[in-house]
Amino acid sequence: MPYIELGNDAPGMTGLLRYRPETGKVLSELAEVLLRGDNTLSRGERELIASYVSTLNGCRFCAMSHGAFAAAQLPGGESVVADACSAPDTAPVSGKLRALLRVAAAVRDGGSAVTPQDVAAARQAGATDAEIHDTVLIAAAFCMFNRYVDGLGTTAPDDPALYAHRAAHIVAHGYLRD
Amino acid sequence: MPYIELGNDAPGMTGLLRYRPETGKVLSELAEVLLRGDNTLSRGERELIASYVSTLNGCRFCAMSHGAFAAAQLPGGESVVADACSAPDTAPVSGKLRALLRVAAAVRDGGSAVTPQDVAAARQAGATDAEIHDTVLIAAAFCMFNRYVDGLGTTAPDDPALYAHRAAHIVAHGYLRD
Repeated sequence: MPYIELGNDAPGMTGLLRYRPETGKVLSELAEVLLRGDNTLSRGERELIASYVSTLNGCRFCAMSHGAFAAAQLPGGESVVADACSAPDTAPVSGKLRALLRVAAAVRDGGSAVTPQDVAAARQAGATDAEIHDTVLIAAAFCMFNRYVDGLGTTAPDDPALYAHRAAHIVAHGYLRD
Repeated sequence: MPYIELGNDAPGMTGLLRYRPETGKVLSELAEVLLRGDNTLSRGERELIASYVSTLNGCRFCAMSHGAFAAAQLPGGESVVADACSAPDTAPVSGKLRALLRVAAAVRDGGSAVTPQDVAAARQAGATDAEIHDTVLIAAAFCMFNRYVDGLGTTAPDDPALYAHRAAHIVAHGYLRD
């Protein structure tokens, strides 16, 4: 049971977006531009960063949701997502993405935990300034989304099929259509 | 020096908003709806929550900025902001706001750190569900903003006059006009 009366039965973030449409609209637009807008990082790569940070933060709803969205859009699917979220340094993803996942983990620990060395390593692995920027902002945004979802005690379904179903919707229509 | 080439000299968040206008626009809209939109929490109270979370996160630019914005809009001004950010449980603010600051501190620690008891105490002190919701989302949003600002190594001026000058602009025009 969520800590406040949402007036709807939707789980996790979905129930919160419906509860307060003024903030819900802006948060959906943020997800859309960060995870699906024009970018040299693929949509699958960006969803993987979101899923990884949510896993580190222990936010089951976001980790399962964005894990499913990443699996639906990343070569290698579920297996690569599981590997990257549990052992990013040896996961079968590009060296650039591995370096960006290290930056994301540092952001999750705290803004000051990101070192010039983390950034230099990402650049050395081929990341552009824009990709480093977007990785930091995606990781930071999921430190918000995860706290929002868990801080209000929302529910997270167990059935992976529900997240896969939602993934098909997100891949087809994005975050701006409920 | 920021970790990436921003193409402008503006400090802290301001430089980041200008660097990437697509995300800057949405982040400014989020600040506007959370900190200045219609609400039973005053603008000063909401800026105080933002400043308090930024203080706990050690983000100097955000703590000084939103501390100045809170001081400009809260009865008691700078002195109340300083008290609330250093010793919220004894600060000369309402019991409701003290309870909401405790919820915000828990959100800052992590979504799962918020307990039903924290929420019940806020409700007992007079907070509505909508006020509890917005407190959680403001605290979560500053866990994003703080990480974004510090994770990219942006600069923070020392001179309090610069933050006071910016406060006058925000009070008059809000977050949507640079």
